[in-house]
Amino acid sequence: MSLLRFDPTTSDWVIFSPSRSLRPHDRPAKVGPGDDLTAAAKCPFCPGNEAFTPPEIYSLRSPADPTHWQVRVFPNKFPALRIEENPRREADGHMFQFMGGCGAHEVIVESPDHRLFLAQQPLDQVERVLRTLQLRYQDLMRDRRVQTVIIFKNHGAEAGTSLAHPHWQLIATPVVPRLLRVKHFEASEYFDRTGSCLYAVIREQELEAGKRILASNEDYVAFMPYASHAPFETWIVPRSPPPSFTQVRPERLRTLAELLKKVLLELHTALDNPAFNLTIDNVPRGDEDKEYFLWHVRILPRLTTPAGFELGSGMAINTVLPEDAVAFLTEVAVVENGKTKTAAA
Amino acid sequence: MSLLRFDPTTSDWVIFSPSRSLRPHDRPAKVGPGDDLTAAAKCPFCPGNEAFTPPEIYSLRSPADPTHWQVRVFPNKFPALRIEENPRREADGHMFQFMGGCGAHEVIVESPDHRLFLAQQPLDQVERVLRTLQLRYQDLMRDRRVQTVIIFKNHGAEAGTSLAHPHWQLIATPVVPRLLRVKHFEASEYFDRTGSCLYAVIREQELEAGKRILASNEDYVAFMPYASHAPFETWIVPRSPPPSFTQVRPERLRTLAELLKKVLLELHTALDNPAFNLTIDNVPRGDEDKEYFLWHVRILPRLTTPAGFELGSGMAINTVLPEDAVAFLTEVAVVENGKTKTAAA
Repeated sequence: MSLLRFDPTTSDWVIFSPSRSLRPHDRPAKVGPGDDLTAAAKCPFCPGNEAFTPPEIYSLRSPADPTHWQVRVFPNKFPALRIEENPRREADGHMFQFMGGCGAHEVIVESPDHRLFLAQQPLDQVERVLRTLQLRYQDLMRDRRVQTVIIFKNHGAEAGTSLAHPHWQLIATPVVPRLLRVKHFEASEYFDRTGSCLYAVIREQELEAGKRILASNEDYVAFMPYASHAPFETWIVPRSPPPSFTQVRPERLRTLAELLKKVLLELHTALDNPAFNLTIDNVPRGDEDKEYFLWHVRILPRLTTPAGFELGSGMAINTVLPEDAVAFLTEVAVVENGKTKTAAA
Repeated sequence: MSLLRFDPTTSDWVIFSPSRSLRPHDRPAKVGPGDDLTAAAKCPFCPGNEAFTPPEIYSLRSPADPTHWQVRVFPNKFPALRIEENPRREADGHMFQFMGGCGAHEVIVESPDHRLFLAQQPLDQVERVLRTLQLRYQDLMRDRRVQTVIIFKNHGAEAGTSLAHPHWQLIATPVVPRLLRVKHFEASEYFDRTGSCLYAVIREQELEAGKRILASNEDYVAFMPYASHAPFETWIVPRSPPPSFTQVRPERLRTLAELLKKVLLELHTALDNPAFNLTIDNVPRGDEDKEYFLWHVRILPRLTTPAGFELGSGMAINTVLPEDAVAFLTEVAVVENGKTKTAAA
């Protein structure tokens, strides 16, 4: 039983998902990547333990070996939102408003392997994960009550992971969350003013400046943005439309897998397996063909703790300039590889 | 050397304060309240160690004993912003913009005592702290380049405390941070539409609903708001203007101290000394007399870790309904006191 309540002071909808904790002060037990080996036997995401998860929604299997899944999708056991709830807005007294927690919350298990991180997976497997995310996204958007689908991945205890087995999550929301509304608004204002896509212009400006580029290939550019909100924040921006992740062609999922793997491996090596969150920012329903936006991947390493200033003001304090972060990663890569590596390599 | 960079995708200014870490992957050492006794001898905030902090800006001393300070203020040794920087906007290429990290960053040591939490301090001492915060706020606002002063307190390692000795911080910013701009905008739109102060209406609605009220006195109401963004989020809202914390009269700082102490003590007891952030939200420069706003205290216990969904969407998932949180606190208070306690007690 979950619901959304409207905060009139910020115009945010807040999701309440009280079933996730039994008593007010109970916290879900956190499991870090360090626990993975011992925990594997009891891991509900491991092959053989499928009965411990809710019923499977989808799985990807090789035609050569259909008895074993390669990627597996099922509803989150403690869903933040559920398709059974009603998104009709209801008044609660004079001022307050709520709606049912309508939506969906799915878990995508990245591979049968409990121990390998995404960066360590073979390219084919990373591509399978991306293909599955796109398929589930497309399917969830068939329900017209769904306004956006947030695709995300938490890695490490500091990033809020509660289970060590590598996985992604999708949350389909009945409203467009405010941060995304802000991003859509800014990009569409910019498009109106200049006729250009803000993200394409940023990508070109970053390529021109050069010093914040982490990696690139024929379809994507990975960089640490000029005004990164956190140390080592990394974006992967496509070189061309479509605006929506749902419409990316299969061959471009392959090149995305390639660059994502490369970038995550560099962060993993240089920062000694940091906790991170990863999200794919997308257009809302109905804007799939609008040129003002360009979907993009954001990777947010969790190296620092936002404190009272950040929570009180919404303003980030970043202790590392992105160009210094890129220089540091390049330096580590040189040492690791024993060979010179250029920023654009 | 710090600076601000503009993020055109969200219209946020991000503060870059690279001097705070020596190498990109160095993190400041975190010290939790558990470390306080052993660390006291070397604590730069303890009496006798004043030479380890930057020069004192202000201190409160009793006329009866002027050799010992009661509350002490000095610049943060690793300031996020400094008054020497220039807030003029500069272009960085075609798209990007930056400005100097102009502002101020002060530390207010709450008392000479390394071990006592704010909730455990005598009422007089809590009042002294609030008076000092107000004085410093007023003084910082004398520099017309300062647009807002963020008053905040971090308690516990999970809340980003780097030093255990209880203290507050003030950061004077050369721009109005976006979260505050949003709050000012929503409240002023509401005022324009209804002729009422949004925060006064919320306070009255919460009093009418009754079930989310934690405590109150003649001047303030403490409640867990209807759409709390995090478990046990608590607000203290004044019963009447002024809109700005800077203009609160001394006798109302006394009653604020009283309610703040009570609320923090209840949270401390029921949640077993939780980490929390506390901020005082205020009007921006020039709006000190405008009725649309009402300054308020926000206490955010750090019981859960925001993960990819929250960072990607800006939307909170709260696992505890505020009315359940209030009921839980009341229940614990009954057990602790061995007597029935009403919500408004």
